[in-house]
Amino acid sequence: MISLEKALEIVKREVKVLPSEKVKLLSSLNRVLAEDIYSEFDIPQFNRAAMDGYAVIAQDTTSACLTHPVVLKIVDEASAGFKAKSSVSSGKAVRIMTGAILPEGADAVVMFEDTESEKDEVKIFRSVKQGRNVSFSGEDVKKGEKVLPRGTFIRPAEVGMLASLSKEEVCVVKKPKVAIISTGSELTEPGDALKEGKIYDSNSFALFSQVVSCGGQPERIGIVPDDEKELLLKVKEALSFDILLLSGGVSMGKYDLVKEVLRKAGVRMLFWKVAVKPGKPTFFGVRNHTLVFGLPGYPVSSMINFENLVKPAIFEMLGRKDYKRFKIRATLKEEIKNTSNRENFIRVKLIEQEGKYLAYPAPSQKSGVLKSMVWANGIIALPKDVRKVESGKQVLVEILS
Amino acid sequence: MISLEKALEIVKREVKVLPSEKVKLLSSLNRVLAEDIYSEFDIPQFNRAAMDGYAVIAQDTTSACLTHPVVLKIVDEASAGFKAKSSVSSGKAVRIMTGAILPEGADAVVMFEDTESEKDEVKIFRSVKQGRNVSFSGEDVKKGEKVLPRGTFIRPAEVGMLASLSKEEVCVVKKPKVAIISTGSELTEPGDALKEGKIYDSNSFALFSQVVSCGGQPERIGIVPDDEKELLLKVKEALSFDILLLSGGVSMGKYDLVKEVLRKAGVRMLFWKVAVKPGKPTFFGVRNHTLVFGLPGYPVSSMINFENLVKPAIFEMLGRKDYKRFKIRATLKEEIKNTSNRENFIRVKLIEQEGKYLAYPAPSQKSGVLKSMVWANGIIALPKDVRKVESGKQVLVEILS
Repeated sequence: MISLEKALEIVKREVKVLPSEKVKLLSSLNRVLAEDIYSEFDIPQFNRAAMDGYAVIAQDTTSACLTHPVVLKIVDEASAGFKAKSSVSSGKAVRIMTGAILPEGADAVVMFEDTESEKDEVKIFRSVKQGRNVSFSGEDVKKGEKVLPRGTFIRPAEVGMLASLSKEEVCVVKKPKVAIISTGSELTEPGDALKEGKIYDSNSFALFSQVVSCGGQPERIGIVPDDEKELLLKVKEALSFDILLLSGGVSMGKYDLVKEVLRKAGVRMLFWKVAVKPGKPTFFGVRNHTLVFGLPGYPVSSMINFENLVKPAIFEMLGRKDYKRFKIRATLKEEIKNTSNRENFIRVKLIEQEGKYLAYPAPSQKSGVLKSMVWANGIIALPKDVRKVESGKQVLVEILS
Repeated sequence: MISLEKALEIVKREVKVLPSEKVKLLSSLNRVLAEDIYSEFDIPQFNRAAMDGYAVIAQDTTSACLTHPVVLKIVDEASAGFKAKSSVSSGKAVRIMTGAILPEGADAVVMFEDTESEKDEVKIFRSVKQGRNVSFSGEDVKKGEKVLPRGTFIRPAEVGMLASLSKEEVCVVKKPKVAIISTGSELTEPGDALKEGKIYDSNSFALFSQVVSCGGQPERIGIVPDDEKELLLKVKEALSFDILLLSGGVSMGKYDLVKEVLRKAGVRMLFWKVAVKPGKPTFFGVRNHTLVFGLPGYPVSSMINFENLVKPAIFEMLGRKDYKRFKIRATLKEEIKNTSNRENFIRVKLIEQEGKYLAYPAPSQKSGVLKSMVWANGIIALPKDVRKVESGKQVLVEILS
């Protein structure tokens, strides 16, 4: 039995970042950049008005105040994207809109709210300093600058940035292909009639959704009964994927044949027990470049081990390093206990109250009770040597997104 | 000029929850339930072994210890999903796997680790209490129970739960259809050549991605130059959507014709200035059931106002109430200032250091500098009457997901 930290180290050692592919900009959201992005030009490319108003020479406005405005002659105007034909010299101004090119000679913009115009004259009621209300060329991005490094997760802001750099397409890391097999003769497909002793397969559905959520491309291979031949066949088929997730059949029992089947399929085992609760019996192995995870059959164990081990593997394949969950300090509202000698992942619900957070543990922390995952929006990781935390204590809760 | 709080109130008053549609379970991730989900059966449906081991009568094991094990006769066995033919009476045990039906007569399971078997006998080295290592019927979910209420956001755990309830399809709220128009003669499509004074349209790309991220279905209508006729045509076309987002053209200038066009298109204006920085000039109006937002042209203002006003509207249309961002207490690493009389949204990067968070403000907080949104994973909302916060102070940072 190894620690989660050690297990993660072993998993990460086996991961290679996947190759890249080109996608259209609007399809790049939630993907990961496979290339460094440099800017081919300044943004903005020219000095421009940052406010609607009058382009002036700042020096001209020095004495301007509410009672003694400075009067300038309006010689031209320019709207966003355009440049006035006239230049600005002392005593003159150009009426200008946000986004227009700053006219030659001008070095500041007085905003409309501080002016009053009549015919071709404008009264300036407030002095401006040089550069005021002007966006200078290269203010956001400089030509040649590395704007986004390879490995960047593409959020809406990055999509906007790529658009402003004129990128119609971008190189992103391919999505890890993840095969999901549920093992167990007790499993029934949702929608089918349930015979005595059987239960509906829920793990492959939850795992499928978890894979989608962290940027992988899942395929549900389906339910395979506890039959060595049949399982071996399916496993061999699934070893063409980047990751194979098996749910169920990794505990101690006589009918637990997953390990044996994986051995026959040429999968090299690297560990099969991790000191966590829930989720101790968890297999990890590799065959060529395929990572194989044998997750426990219990729905909570399966989901938590996915979060702790598979998600980091998928992120590493994508070249992402940001799989740490945000942590929020909260007041524990009910005592929690760790009855194992393993790191214990307690499911809690965080509720905000007057700017502070309260953490309510799920009523049942059993690994078979999926309702605790439905309840939870956070996880408390109790170290193996902490036996209990009393109600009212401060705890760190990791946010489940 | 109204407060953000007031603006939100006005927006929410105009929102109606959208109708529902049926989707396949695997497509329900990140959607919102449009129906209450009740369970038609207990989960589990029978008492079952929660561990691999021996089903026994707890009473039989009372005296068991390492030095004086209790010896029981193995009369049968059962694997997951099955039931032993024999029942358990005093002195007898059934070898049983996790997920098997608890045999008649038995009331506890001794796990393998506490036993030793030879032929048809098993030595029990540890006593168990009644109910130990047994999952009782209805332990996770009771028949008739309301498991998930309408309005639930469907995460992987909910998908798993719905599978375990045998739901092949679920009723979810339709995705709000969102039309996006970028206005401004200065805008150029990414990939096209850039003429003097022009810039690439980035807002419609960022907004498109923001709509996707919060569960809407965006359509990029495209760039419309500052021409009343052309804009009116496009706006009328887009008023068939649930939401129309216009970017640019809501500030004071002569060429800002968006308000006029919206009036002509029959849009009833409800506000057009909000006391926030960035993003003061923001139009909101309605026509029939269509919400119309005129967002500022500056990329940061546009994105922040989307977060603050449009996202809540989309969430309300979906029947979700959980649009509040999680807040993390952090140490501010550089002084921040509010030079406006408006609520100020400062973009910061949260970095974890030894279990604590540090908040680094983006070097430029100008609304034209999209790089600040690329920099940020969090936002500090500075109230309008707070002039500055010094470096080293504790601040609350809202997480941008």
